[in-house]
Amino acid sequence: MTLMPSTLDDTPAPLQAPAKRTTNSDRSMSSFFRPRTVAVIGASEKPGGVGRALLENLGTFHGTLYPVNGQRDTVLGKKAYRNIASVPTRVDLAVIATPAATVPGIIRECVQAGVGAAIVISAGFKESGATGTELEHQILEAIKGTSLRVIGPNCLGVMGPHVNLNATFSKDMARTGNVAFLTQSGALGTAIIDWSLKEKVGFSAFVSIGSMLDIGWGDLIRHLGEDPQTHSIMIYMESVGDAPAFLAAVREVAPVKPIVVIKVGRTDAAAKAAASHTGALTGSDEVLDAAFNRAGVIRVATIEEFFSMAKVLAKQPLPRGPRLSIVTNAGGPGVLATDMLVECGAQLATLSPETLAELNKVLPAHWSHGNPIDILGDADAARYAAAVAVAAKDPGADGVLVILTPQAMTDPIATADLMRTYAKMDGKPLLTSWMGGTRAKTGRSILNEAGIPMFDYPDEAARAFSNMWRYSQSRLPHPVLAPEGKPGPEAQEPETEKVTELIHSIRQRKGTLLTEYESKQVLSAYGIPTVETRLAASQIDAVAAAESIGFPVVLKLHSDTITHKTDVGGVRLNIRDASEVRGAWDAIEGAVRAKHGPGHFQGVTVQPMVMLKGCELILGSSLDPQFGPVLLFGAGGVLVEVFKDRALGLPPLDAYLARRLMEQTKIFKVLKGVRGRSSVDMAALDQILVRFSRLVAEQRWIKEIDINPLLASPERILALDARIVLHGPEVREEDIPELAATL
Amino acid sequence: MTLMPSTLDDTPAPLQAPAKRTTNSDRSMSSFFRPRTVAVIGASEKPGGVGRALLENLGTFHGTLYPVNGQRDTVLGKKAYRNIASVPTRVDLAVIATPAATVPGIIRECVQAGVGAAIVISAGFKESGATGTELEHQILEAIKGTSLRVIGPNCLGVMGPHVNLNATFSKDMARTGNVAFLTQSGALGTAIIDWSLKEKVGFSAFVSIGSMLDIGWGDLIRHLGEDPQTHSIMIYMESVGDAPAFLAAVREVAPVKPIVVIKVGRTDAAAKAAASHTGALTGSDEVLDAAFNRAGVIRVATIEEFFSMAKVLAKQPLPRGPRLSIVTNAGGPGVLATDMLVECGAQLATLSPETLAELNKVLPAHWSHGNPIDILGDADAARYAAAVAVAAKDPGADGVLVILTPQAMTDPIATADLMRTYAKMDGKPLLTSWMGGTRAKTGRSILNEAGIPMFDYPDEAARAFSNMWRYSQSRLPHPVLAPEGKPGPEAQEPETEKVTELIHSIRQRKGTLLTEYESKQVLSAYGIPTVETRLAASQIDAVAAAESIGFPVVLKLHSDTITHKTDVGGVRLNIRDASEVRGAWDAIEGAVRAKHGPGHFQGVTVQPMVMLKGCELILGSSLDPQFGPVLLFGAGGVLVEVFKDRALGLPPLDAYLARRLMEQTKIFKVLKGVRGRSSVDMAALDQILVRFSRLVAEQRWIKEIDINPLLASPERILALDARIVLHGPEVREEDIPELAATL
Repeated sequence: MTLMPSTLDDTPAPLQAPAKRTTNSDRSMSSFFRPRTVAVIGASEKPGGVGRALLENLGTFHGTLYPVNGQRDTVLGKKAYRNIASVPTRVDLAVIATPAATVPGIIRECVQAGVGAAIVISAGFKESGATGTELEHQILEAIKGTSLRVIGPNCLGVMGPHVNLNATFSKDMARTGNVAFLTQSGALGTAIIDWSLKEKVGFSAFVSIGSMLDIGWGDLIRHLGEDPQTHSIMIYMESVGDAPAFLAAVREVAPVKPIVVIKVGRTDAAAKAAASHTGALTGSDEVLDAAFNRAGVIRVATIEEFFSMAKVLAKQPLPRGPRLSIVTNAGGPGVLATDMLVECGAQLATLSPETLAELNKVLPAHWSHGNPIDILGDADAARYAAAVAVAAKDPGADGVLVILTPQAMTDPIATADLMRTYAKMDGKPLLTSWMGGTRAKTGRSILNEAGIPMFDYPDEAARAFSNMWRYSQSRLPHPVLAPEGKPGPEAQEPETEKVTELIHSIRQRKGTLLTEYESKQVLSAYGIPTVETRLAASQIDAVAAAESIGFPVVLKLHSDTITHKTDVGGVRLNIRDASEVRGAWDAIEGAVRAKHGPGHFQGVTVQPMVMLKGCELILGSSLDPQFGPVLLFGAGGVLVEVFKDRALGLPPLDAYLARRLMEQTKIFKVLKGVRGRSSVDMAALDQILVRFSRLVAEQRWIKEIDINPLLASPERILALDARIVLHGPEVREEDIPELAATL
Repeated sequence: MTLMPSTLDDTPAPLQAPAKRTTNSDRSMSSFFRPRTVAVIGASEKPGGVGRALLENLGTFHGTLYPVNGQRDTVLGKKAYRNIASVPTRVDLAVIATPAATVPGIIRECVQAGVGAAIVISAGFKESGATGTELEHQILEAIKGTSLRVIGPNCLGVMGPHVNLNATFSKDMARTGNVAFLTQSGALGTAIIDWSLKEKVGFSAFVSIGSMLDIGWGDLIRHLGEDPQTHSIMIYMESVGDAPAFLAAVREVAPVKPIVVIKVGRTDAAAKAAASHTGALTGSDEVLDAAFNRAGVIRVATIEEFFSMAKVLAKQPLPRGPRLSIVTNAGGPGVLATDMLVECGAQLATLSPETLAELNKVLPAHWSHGNPIDILGDADAARYAAAVAVAAKDPGADGVLVILTPQAMTDPIATADLMRTYAKMDGKPLLTSWMGGTRAKTGRSILNEAGIPMFDYPDEAARAFSNMWRYSQSRLPHPVLAPEGKPGPEAQEPETEKVTELIHSIRQRKGTLLTEYESKQVLSAYGIPTVETRLAASQIDAVAAAESIGFPVVLKLHSDTITHKTDVGGVRLNIRDASEVRGAWDAIEGAVRAKHGPGHFQGVTVQPMVMLKGCELILGSSLDPQFGPVLLFGAGGVLVEVFKDRALGLPPLDAYLARRLMEQTKIFKVLKGVRGRSSVDMAALDQILVRFSRLVAEQRWIKEIDINPLLASPERILALDARIVLHGPEVREEDIPELAATL
């Protein structure tokens, strides 16, 4: 296989432009994070109230603050205005904390007053039932066609640390930094801010996204993608909302800035818990994984891993490769870190001869002479510094992890101090783990303050490094697969029109299920090789077809109505001569008449008996309500549901993506040839997946399609059976979910 | 399936007594942890030296301390003795920190002086080469036949917190408690002690085990198993050492006290190249997992999980069931905890109608009305306490996790204070997660001090609960499987003698590989059904055999020397009549003559052509150098290496263990019947595994055995092919690893 870097010319044109459902008003979006004027609507003095908390928290805001209160002239000693219209200057950002019923009216006033952006903190909308849902409709109606954008309702608010903006009712203001944090749980947001203050992680933006009535993930990701002060985006997600908008934004931004997502509700029980508290619907987690993977999102599983990523992305550069050097004063923790590192897909750096020689000079004779670099239990701060200096210089290392255990001669503080020299290495992240409880505490603070990420556990640090590398890798230019050896079948344009017409005619007669014969016609039109299949409406035709194909043949029932041919004895294998053809015809016709009546028998199909040995694969697609068509590739045949050896992907695919999809399965190894077997023609198989994905992308009336089995042998690749289901007449074209991905 | 509690009568007699290689000297073992008199040999004043650190650390010891120094009369103001012989009273524990070369002599002196136990801190033994190894031999020689037991060399030492004994050179003394902690890394030990001081986790014993020259895991586990002050045993392990001794001790202790192991080096073994699919597993991490699993060890993967277990086991009772109630002031963290809980095998408690009613009384109307019990963002301490009181009372909950996020109205300190009431619930662990950084800090300290385990992340708490449940469950009485419906084949005693003789005769002729015919004889003798197989030494015999069996038949090469029959065309299927038998005979004989010469053809075997449809299974065993024979069960056939759908177990098995082994595979579902297929006779399959395990346990000359495929259909279970390899003549019986497990 040859991997060539992608160039503009090599990249096929996208099949479909990404859906862009919302216009991105630049003024409105930046009004959320860098307003000059802010109004608090519902400002009050009530102790413990949200209106008071907002006012207090906005006290340090760098711009001008206008309390708005319908009843009072002053609030907390500040002049208050009766409504937004009476505020003397144009307001960039309105923060609304009034009862739900009043919010649509206030939003209308905001539109009239030319307010740039609004945050609705108030709860009491769709989560409270029909009345709330109606209020949401009214808000949407009010902002329709205007440039006013709304975050919320039912949220904690927004922080813009670079202008000292704390437009939330949470006391603690985030530190200034380069991580944007978007959360669908206000409470988790407060916990993360609290934690970030301790660990000295700074933010460029904090958004509690609430119910996503107007502004959703896609808007924020796209805006923050262009924000120079944001270097990475961290997302706590309970529901994906507008999936195409999310994916389109991620696709734009992920190649430039890491996007880390913790998505809850992986298990059914958890999804249920999530649904009960926000009213959000959670789709299949497997599909979500495929979509995240396609878009280049780094998905993490635990809060700790999420915190870890925030920490490293906030403080350190991305590694350029997977090779980590570990400096430690104890063997065990080094081994634990190595285990995790390798399990997560990164690797130990191999020390160069020069590095070994230099380490020999600065370390005692008994050091480990390899990586992990064990500098022994009596290592003092100077020895740590010397070892890190040498390890960091090695061009074969893409990052350094320093582990310290509190032993008799260990000086956690002085060692931390010396690490500060290495806090900003170009393209080489430095990670640390000062282990233990109280003895290493001051050392840990020094590291945190110096912008060096500190982990309680060295294995967690190794995982964070692996995650960083995973992202770096996903950013590498997308290569284009050149066919290996002989090229696959000629890349001939599919007969799109023919398929469109066939599907149209079936829909005309209100059909939803294609016969096997029709299904194979569809595949053939898209250049997917199928076993030769002839229709025979009479016994004489059947014999003629069999003789033309050559014995042995297979006869299968041809019926517009019966799906499961085998159940009615509708499949006859290994037919050796004309008289057996006649016998099989009679048997099939008789069985269908007896079980279903004569109207269900439209003849038979005649196919050669395929004697090839090979792998049985399955290639299919079905519709996800959030992500549109989803492809499935895997081991086929009867045990498909037992081994579940399959991978999901989003169409469209090119050859590179097709190969990456197949690589996720175990059967892939068999295709490549195991135990002396030859490889299947992988380039041809790539192309079959590419064409199948194009079929799925272009023929939108197809609801479900399965090729099972797709027989792949070193000699040939052949669709032996296929099943296509269309949307019913009750479905309108605009209701069919669109493709979520593009090439 | 009927599960009956095990009774003494139902339990089959153990096949073999566990190896007990070391005598357990009670006085010696308790001298390590509860000495009255301690001598420090090598006590010195040298700043930074180990001899000085030991003396200082032992300063607070409750008993009497004797410094021993060959040159000085006093050390640090204390009277010093020239040698152990001159110490006026009998010494319980000698702590030795002199140069390696002097240690054998000192040990001999200790034996003469009647010292109870010795810890050799000194390094410079086998880790430094041949001289060191020789010194170790001398030490072993010196203690042989005496009651003196030795921990180390090359270790940090031992702590016995209940007598204020810090016989290590690490400053920090562990708190008094009920966790015994054994570590093969001194540095990791110091980190854990340091951490435990912060989190208020107390220990009954701390042992840095060093090189395990004398005392190993088995001795310590057995001793601590009987120590009333030890409630759980935590082990950081780099190598398992004497595997049978370890497993025997664990088997004794694990049903009474939880044993948690973190074993490093998971990935090294995985990288080992594969020679054959069963052979490759030996010495691997998979075998270790199987052994741990069999013995009831809780294995954890990360240091964090290890710390978490120490925390919960030190502070809380074990749960009696898997059902956790979660009380939280935020939805998101509750969902994250649920995800982890379910993924780790525990579950959410279902709230009883009474609990729901009571919660409705004490909580605001909008609470989640389900588990997780979301008591809303404005929950104060009293609301937390009310919710926990109700949740804990529900008989359907086996534990409670309380999550607190720092929101505006949250009071982390008062809430922590009120939790203390629930710190000691009978059989219901209470776990907490006060999230965030500094705001919840004091609350966290209160919880730690009150004996309520505190976790930074709620998902980590959920995992700890699941791990506790995993252990509780493993302690449940081992049930005995009663056959379902019709009983399996009669439980007839195996013809052990016959097999022993057959194997003896093959060994006599220096053979190591059994023919297929011999292998099937072995299986038959142990009651494992095989396909009827007749030997035919001539064409006439072959025809007669085929006619007697009934056509169609299969002819296979019978050869003492050729292993891979298919490669020489030695397998002919679907033979329909006598003339085809003769043709097949000629073809096989001709092929063997041409390729290998006439001496390799000993005739053919004749077998019926089995037309049954069913599952192809593999049942095998090979030798692990540490754990002896290891069983493998899984999906068989040609794709066995692709899907790797298999589970490992240790012999011997009973029906219960056989079923548990099979349940770990995906093919198990197919055996039980999927998509309308009937189930295989599972009771009969249990018995086949039981007999196979007995064969492996009894016939110690068998090095490797594979039944592949074992065909399992609803009608029959049948070994279609089998392969048995014996140890070669160069192997002595005493070198064959013994069974590591018993029933």
